[in-house]
Amino acid sequence: MSKVKLGIIGIGNMGSSHSNNIIAGKIPEIELVAVADRKESRRQWAKDNLPETVQIFEEGDALIESGVCDAVLVAVPHYDHPRLVMKAFEYGQHAMCEKPAGVYTKQVREMNAAAEKCDKVFAMMFNQRTNHVYRKMYEMVHSGEYGQIKRVNWIITNWYRSQAYYNSGGWRATWDGEGGGVLLNQCPHNLDLIQWICGMPSKVTAFCHEGKWHDIEVEDDVTAYLEYPNGATGVFITTTADLPGTNRFEVTLERAKLVCEDNELKVFELNVSERETCFNSPNGFPKAEGKWIDVETDGLNPQHVGVLNAFAGRILHRTPLVAEGNEGINGLTLSNAMHLSSWLGKTIELPFDEDLFLEELNKKRQNSKKKDTVVETTFDTAGTY
Amino acid sequence: MSKVKLGIIGIGNMGSSHSNNIIAGKIPEIELVAVADRKESRRQWAKDNLPETVQIFEEGDALIESGVCDAVLVAVPHYDHPRLVMKAFEYGQHAMCEKPAGVYTKQVREMNAAAEKCDKVFAMMFNQRTNHVYRKMYEMVHSGEYGQIKRVNWIITNWYRSQAYYNSGGWRATWDGEGGGVLLNQCPHNLDLIQWICGMPSKVTAFCHEGKWHDIEVEDDVTAYLEYPNGATGVFITTTADLPGTNRFEVTLERAKLVCEDNELKVFELNVSERETCFNSPNGFPKAEGKWIDVETDGLNPQHVGVLNAFAGRILHRTPLVAEGNEGINGLTLSNAMHLSSWLGKTIELPFDEDLFLEELNKKRQNSKKKDTVVETTFDTAGTY
Repeated sequence: MSKVKLGIIGIGNMGSSHSNNIIAGKIPEIELVAVADRKESRRQWAKDNLPETVQIFEEGDALIESGVCDAVLVAVPHYDHPRLVMKAFEYGQHAMCEKPAGVYTKQVREMNAAAEKCDKVFAMMFNQRTNHVYRKMYEMVHSGEYGQIKRVNWIITNWYRSQAYYNSGGWRATWDGEGGGVLLNQCPHNLDLIQWICGMPSKVTAFCHEGKWHDIEVEDDVTAYLEYPNGATGVFITTTADLPGTNRFEVTLERAKLVCEDNELKVFELNVSERETCFNSPNGFPKAEGKWIDVETDGLNPQHVGVLNAFAGRILHRTPLVAEGNEGINGLTLSNAMHLSSWLGKTIELPFDEDLFLEELNKKRQNSKKKDTVVETTFDTAGTY
Repeated sequence: MSKVKLGIIGIGNMGSSHSNNIIAGKIPEIELVAVADRKESRRQWAKDNLPETVQIFEEGDALIESGVCDAVLVAVPHYDHPRLVMKAFEYGQHAMCEKPAGVYTKQVREMNAAAEKCDKVFAMMFNQRTNHVYRKMYEMVHSGEYGQIKRVNWIITNWYRSQAYYNSGGWRATWDGEGGGVLLNQCPHNLDLIQWICGMPSKVTAFCHEGKWHDIEVEDDVTAYLEYPNGATGVFITTTADLPGTNRFEVTLERAKLVCEDNELKVFELNVSERETCFNSPNGFPKAEGKWIDVETDGLNPQHVGVLNAFAGRILHRTPLVAEGNEGINGLTLSNAMHLSSWLGKTIELPFDEDLFLEELNKKRQNSKKKDTVVETTFDTAGTY
């Protein structure tokens, strides 16, 4: 095949944005052949805005079963991600999964197992991995040149959302519809990046406040404390109520400190490892010897378009993905551990008890309330993820 | 009297620096008339470096009892701060106490009660309160113009200390000699400032790692999570092992965000309160409307000299102190709560059980080990506090 025939399941905020990128010709090796949405208004949008050649389905299941697609992009509410991805595999189709990989790791583990058993391409929509500054941080940390990580601080609070946002869909910001708040909807990118760049912690203690700043039942203010297997410590801080927000990601290593703020990356390169200075310096108050460098990057940040181009590339030419599908479980593990820690009021060691998490989540779902203030809206999401 | 006759008890790193400032004429209304130190080497330093008119004592008690001073500055190891301050009051002398006010709030409460019963001036050496950026933050937060605080993040890790520092005195970094690590020695300034500027939290959860980066028995890596009575949340992060360190203090309010990094203060002033935007905006993803402003300050930062000039001013002219003595208990309350939280592995609500804290501290003291690697050294501390 010269082009991948893609079906998009779910054409809300994200799915419609992907559709627009494809029909604008930004992903030359992908042809949009089908979309599916349960909402009449979204199907009407598709009729009005997409080429006539695009088939429109009500159900994602029907889209997959029709066999018109080589691959599907799953952009429905989170709980259904694993089920539809697995169904695509079952029908011999490749799958791109929107973040998060799912709501609980148990279902994602099942999806990963299904992916492993088939020969189809499985990818995660971790578009932030295409950002030049995060790619550069990944390279720098993984080069080994700077030694081990000692400390990680990420204040990522530039995910501002108004009450109108939460009122825009019945599933949004409910335990039963979405399965979480800022950790499940906005932060999957950051939780993926922090594990991609810094590795997985071994212990998580979190303080998640539910409905602190908005009239919602899920968390909108989170402080998580992390401990890594090598003894490094860290925090991950987020909220959807900080205006203006902060995005400051600081990684301290034995021979360097990386600071990425507002898409600019700088590094202090030490002449001598801090560990050597600590134990060898005769001075009680040594100064950091070295210098700050503004890190040069390739400046490229292709985001969703980059992820979809790489997806087509893997299918057609066996070239690398931006993010392998089976890596989606890592960020979700962090998010689940943060929730569980906060719900139980204790530190969670990884791997955690996935059955216990699901039990606790199901309690939340049972008490989940139907919203009475929904104003169904599809926002223009440009620049918001 | 035209000048305050001052005695300095303890002329190690800090006391000798204060002595030098006074004999250099930087505090015109103070005359140094006596010093005391238990170490022969420090008394020899005094003989060699201070004017002949300065009397030299071995014991602070003897200095106070001699009656040659109007006021004393207590700069001995922390446990003895309250005892010597109270002794000064007993002998009718004014007292300036080095930070921290003491090691445990119970003894500081006793000192505050003694101060209240006498008419002597009681001041704390919180020299960082003289820094123009912190004075400005205090003014801006307390003006009320920006509404309530929503979030506080202080990463204050520029307190680098080598192993040589910890080896430089037998009392240093031991439970029995110092009563704590970075929280008791380096951070009293920051713990005072965070409470001065943002008020006292109601709950503290902390993760203090003892001897993580140095061969010491006390904490050198701390992450504390704070909750305030109005619902605001925050973190306080410190270590003596980050090279280079960070000093980034961020306060998010309803109508502004203050960011103070490396002694530069900027503010984003919102046109509309975030709380109004949240509930009134029809946009799901509102942008912050307003602008960043580099805050102008008076640029003054007189530090210890400023604190001592104000101390003399209060004694001689009833002008304001930089920090009232009885405010020393607030930062120590934070530090004690952080220790207690970490020791017990749970969240501590304020006010906490002071007897329980003392009991736990005493357990630590009983297991405190005599150091076998001490190389008595007095460092030049210029620019390190």
